[in-house]
Amino acid sequence: MKNTFNTENTNLKALFLGDKGENVDLFKELLNKMVDEHVGWRQNYMPQDLPVITPQDRSSKEFQETADHMRSVFNLLSSRLRTESLPWHTAGRFWGHMNSETLMPSIIAYTAAMLWNGNNVAYESSPATSQMEEEVGMEFATLMGYQNGWGHIAADGSIANLEGLWYARNMKSLPLAIKAVVPEMVEGKTEWELLNMSTTEVLDILDKVQDKVDEIKAESARSGKNLDKLGKWIVPQTKHYSWLKAADIIGIGLDQVIAGEVNSEYRMDIDKLEAQIRDLAAQGIPTLGVVGVVGSTEEGQVDRIDQIIALRDKLAAEGIYFYVHVDAAYGGYGRSIFLDENDKFIEWDKIEEVYAKNGIFMEKNDWLTREVYESFKAIEQAESVTIDPHKMGYIPYSAGGVVIKDIRMRDVISYFATYVFEKGADIPALLGAYILEGSKAGATAAAVWTAHKVLPLNVTGYGKLMGASIEGAYHFYHFIDGLEFQVGDKTIEMHALTKPDFNMVDYVFNEKGNTDLVKMNKLNHDFYDYASYAKGGLYNNEFITSHTDFAIEEYGHSPFEFVNSLGFSRAEWERADKVTILRAAAMSPYMNDKEVFDEYAEKIKNAIQSKLEAIYAEEA
Amino acid sequence: MKNTFNTENTNLKALFLGDKGENVDLFKELLNKMVDEHVGWRQNYMPQDLPVITPQDRSSKEFQETADHMRSVFNLLSSRLRTESLPWHTAGRFWGHMNSETLMPSIIAYTAAMLWNGNNVAYESSPATSQMEEEVGMEFATLMGYQNGWGHIAADGSIANLEGLWYARNMKSLPLAIKAVVPEMVEGKTEWELLNMSTTEVLDILDKVQDKVDEIKAESARSGKNLDKLGKWIVPQTKHYSWLKAADIIGIGLDQVIAGEVNSEYRMDIDKLEAQIRDLAAQGIPTLGVVGVVGSTEEGQVDRIDQIIALRDKLAAEGIYFYVHVDAAYGGYGRSIFLDENDKFIEWDKIEEVYAKNGIFMEKNDWLTREVYESFKAIEQAESVTIDPHKMGYIPYSAGGVVIKDIRMRDVISYFATYVFEKGADIPALLGAYILEGSKAGATAAAVWTAHKVLPLNVTGYGKLMGASIEGAYHFYHFIDGLEFQVGDKTIEMHALTKPDFNMVDYVFNEKGNTDLVKMNKLNHDFYDYASYAKGGLYNNEFITSHTDFAIEEYGHSPFEFVNSLGFSRAEWERADKVTILRAAAMSPYMNDKEVFDEYAEKIKNAIQSKLEAIYAEEA
Repeated sequence: MKNTFNTENTNLKALFLGDKGENVDLFKELLNKMVDEHVGWRQNYMPQDLPVITPQDRSSKEFQETADHMRSVFNLLSSRLRTESLPWHTAGRFWGHMNSETLMPSIIAYTAAMLWNGNNVAYESSPATSQMEEEVGMEFATLMGYQNGWGHIAADGSIANLEGLWYARNMKSLPLAIKAVVPEMVEGKTEWELLNMSTTEVLDILDKVQDKVDEIKAESARSGKNLDKLGKWIVPQTKHYSWLKAADIIGIGLDQVIAGEVNSEYRMDIDKLEAQIRDLAAQGIPTLGVVGVVGSTEEGQVDRIDQIIALRDKLAAEGIYFYVHVDAAYGGYGRSIFLDENDKFIEWDKIEEVYAKNGIFMEKNDWLTREVYESFKAIEQAESVTIDPHKMGYIPYSAGGVVIKDIRMRDVISYFATYVFEKGADIPALLGAYILEGSKAGATAAAVWTAHKVLPLNVTGYGKLMGASIEGAYHFYHFIDGLEFQVGDKTIEMHALTKPDFNMVDYVFNEKGNTDLVKMNKLNHDFYDYASYAKGGLYNNEFITSHTDFAIEEYGHSPFEFVNSLGFSRAEWERADKVTILRAAAMSPYMNDKEVFDEYAEKIKNAIQSKLEAIYAEEA
Repeated sequence: MKNTFNTENTNLKALFLGDKGENVDLFKELLNKMVDEHVGWRQNYMPQDLPVITPQDRSSKEFQETADHMRSVFNLLSSRLRTESLPWHTAGRFWGHMNSETLMPSIIAYTAAMLWNGNNVAYESSPATSQMEEEVGMEFATLMGYQNGWGHIAADGSIANLEGLWYARNMKSLPLAIKAVVPEMVEGKTEWELLNMSTTEVLDILDKVQDKVDEIKAESARSGKNLDKLGKWIVPQTKHYSWLKAADIIGIGLDQVIAGEVNSEYRMDIDKLEAQIRDLAAQGIPTLGVVGVVGSTEEGQVDRIDQIIALRDKLAAEGIYFYVHVDAAYGGYGRSIFLDENDKFIEWDKIEEVYAKNGIFMEKNDWLTREVYESFKAIEQAESVTIDPHKMGYIPYSAGGVVIKDIRMRDVISYFATYVFEKGADIPALLGAYILEGSKAGATAAAVWTAHKVLPLNVTGYGKLMGASIEGAYHFYHFIDGLEFQVGDKTIEMHALTKPDFNMVDYVFNEKGNTDLVKMNKLNHDFYDYASYAKGGLYNNEFITSHTDFAIEEYGHSPFEFVNSLGFSRAEWERADKVTILRAAAMSPYMNDKEVFDEYAEKIKNAIQSKLEAIYAEEA
């Protein structure tokens, strides 16, 4: 028998421990197998060496006491973990933060590889897991549609975003450095033109002056020079605070970060973006880059990457160039639902057929719009991407990722003049010289690699998991939107914020007839208190969610259309200054089954009813 | 029975899986217990909810095929890990990179906590492990002797160093920001004086203008302003490349990094450092900060932190102030060997007595010098420290750490005006707003927390492990220094680079009578090839080591004294331009036992003999 597997038969339920630990036998079988095989490896390494821990050692009083001490510590650890952890694992009661059960194969692979404790900072310390990281990086590149790309695992999305900004900063400064070192290569260009050269143009020049590259790099932004000339970094108003941190850390400074306005769908407004960039250009200020978000942190919405790219190309023709980084920390794995079994982006006309064949949705696809489709497609034209395996990759924390479109960019941030690669392959001998971090767990690479082997990054694998999550999100969305509760003489209505671009459902409660937005905000915040750790007793909480605030200071008036649809006036919106939103990242892999969802829907409804009653009782 | 344990009875052998997997039963007992208790928790969470994975699901063909597919993937993973991983676990054959067996409790704790998958970026997502991280942070602070300190776990030492530089950069810029926002607080001070204010002075001013702090921070280096005024960052010549990366990333730029010369013991030359700083001051250039290294990457040597601090205080009296960051990524846990059972730094006169009582060394302490003692002691006066649990903490990758002396510094890099803390405690609601990273594994915190519970950070716990490692290093050091081999008519001698300040032993082979340094370098590089992955077959390699080059470009002439002691002239040193060094981070927890060491010494000698014969045979 070969190790053949017809991926059409993938059953996602075999890949999770299970909300009730249903697959514990399978989990322990594989976990113990990996431990045994590791121990066998130890035993058979230099069998001429006798065990250093002798039977006498193990029988000694001190050994026994130490072992018992360790056992006591594990009792304490277990108690603390069980007392104050969140029940992400539940099939249908957790509708909050970006978390859920993670893939059983990745948990086991992490543990297995941890026994060998490779450090992927250097190939020498971790040949096995360094190769896995290289493979994962190439899988990321393929996922993004990059023909000549490269990627690696990062500690998390904030670090990956910081690395993206580091790339952009150093890239943008290179023409000034080229001018300083080999002026003939950019002859006749003004400073404005130098600061508006495309990434490809710059990399092509570097190709031509290989012997001068180190000298040029030494004159780039890494020297500390010209940081104040590089221009503005535009991030959508929905921005994650990590972008502010990144601008602080990278030295361009918070003063260079400006917000791109979002529309009522919480996607960047491209017309306004264009006006913004033209306005800057008119003042002689370059645009360092634009961040498009695929799966915004608070809304799960997807920026129109296709329109950002179209704008980039249009303005480039007019001599204005900006770098595009896609922050797909959340939604990056979502691209797998668009790739066919050969990793090609599926044509729009074929997509329903492919989904039907691969069983992407159990019932129907009422999610996908052409806008979302084109946005995901256009990622292949961005310079770099953040993707977090520990979000929609269903991998345990911490696992982020960075992908670049053009492998040549790697040298723009790298150290050491002599590029040493292993065995003629593309694997750097010292990965740490090509990325932001240093030491890094080989175990993370093993966890991601194993997950990708079990579930390839296309419709035959991860695409199914994306589909399950999205279909579950849509069940929740349809269920709560317009749902009503009766508490005494009050009617409480639920409203969804938008049709979800991905798998996040934002929503609010409001009392029918209420025109006081501050009161609505309080109701939603109170609800959150009852549906989170805030009131304690997470283990007994029958419905858990998360919350956020959309304040005018950050979001501008983009939430007004929604607020207005609930009956609040412009004046009321400006008085309240914000709207409090409840938020469900619907990651459960089980909620796509309508029958199962309906069971939970009833429970959720009852739990919400009790919470609302408690809130109103408290008020009375 | 209480969970009492007399720490004097700690037997380190109970805390490792064992070079031959001797403790596999204990390992599996605890691993499976933690899995079972987790599964029990899942089963008893809302028992009214039926398992979502049904018996019919599990019996289905698709489920079975998916499970078999996963099993095949694990066969592949296991094969690849066993084929190309390093045998860190061996008791006495691995004398190379900073790695060894890691603590069994931390491996198991990581796996256990991974099942709950807490994300310590926010308390809300991980109450249990966030509290553990806060406790670990305070333990780090206590370890460093900080009375009012704070610490947290970082992804790795490079990230921790970058965070240290971020602290220094923002701190240094604050007086200029204070001047811009509340000039009356720094009235009469010149720009030079502003750029030479002490950390405490600056923090005290911020305390007095709490309502202006956000405005001041907005004017600090985080804005992008004044980066070019902050001066030079001095790193010893032994510097890790991560410091170059850090200066690049943080925006001060590589042009601001200067090397502090090291002496023939590979410790920073303090007189030269003083001259350097005075020289800069004479040119009106501030010194942003000085990095002292405790456990240099290539030599394991310990900078004279006490002398750096004394210099800081002396120059401060003259109006020159620099920030001190201690890069104790490698040696940080070493401070545990200096703390008594009450975590107080042991007096010099009492140290032998305490060591005897706690069984720190099996035979004798021929390691500790007053210099090393004072260096470790003075860490308590540095502003910040990097410490890596994944190095001398014997924790699996990736686990770094940052510690700050004054918890108020935390606000210098933090985000959000409203500092929300949990339950009146000091735990930030959003740790991600106070550190460089974002999402981070709660499992890492659990792994470190558990290790610290089993082995407290003083002579009753980790101190013993440090002692075991150092004593093993000294066995190796005494064994190899002066050892001779006969290959044909050639005599090959081994020479240690220095008396180790910690547990790293650097050494070279040289042919007796050889005066050709290039030839010696080749011999050592050839030896490395035979004693590393380079020639393949790691599993069958009977002695493994690592190597490095000390080149004039980086090290200046600090290696000359050693090179000269081997009989090479100054001219020869300059001709060769570098010396190739073999390097053993002696981390095995078993090599302190002289009897065991002697057994391995014989094997090592034979392995070296074979390798040398192979090298000379190849040449012939």
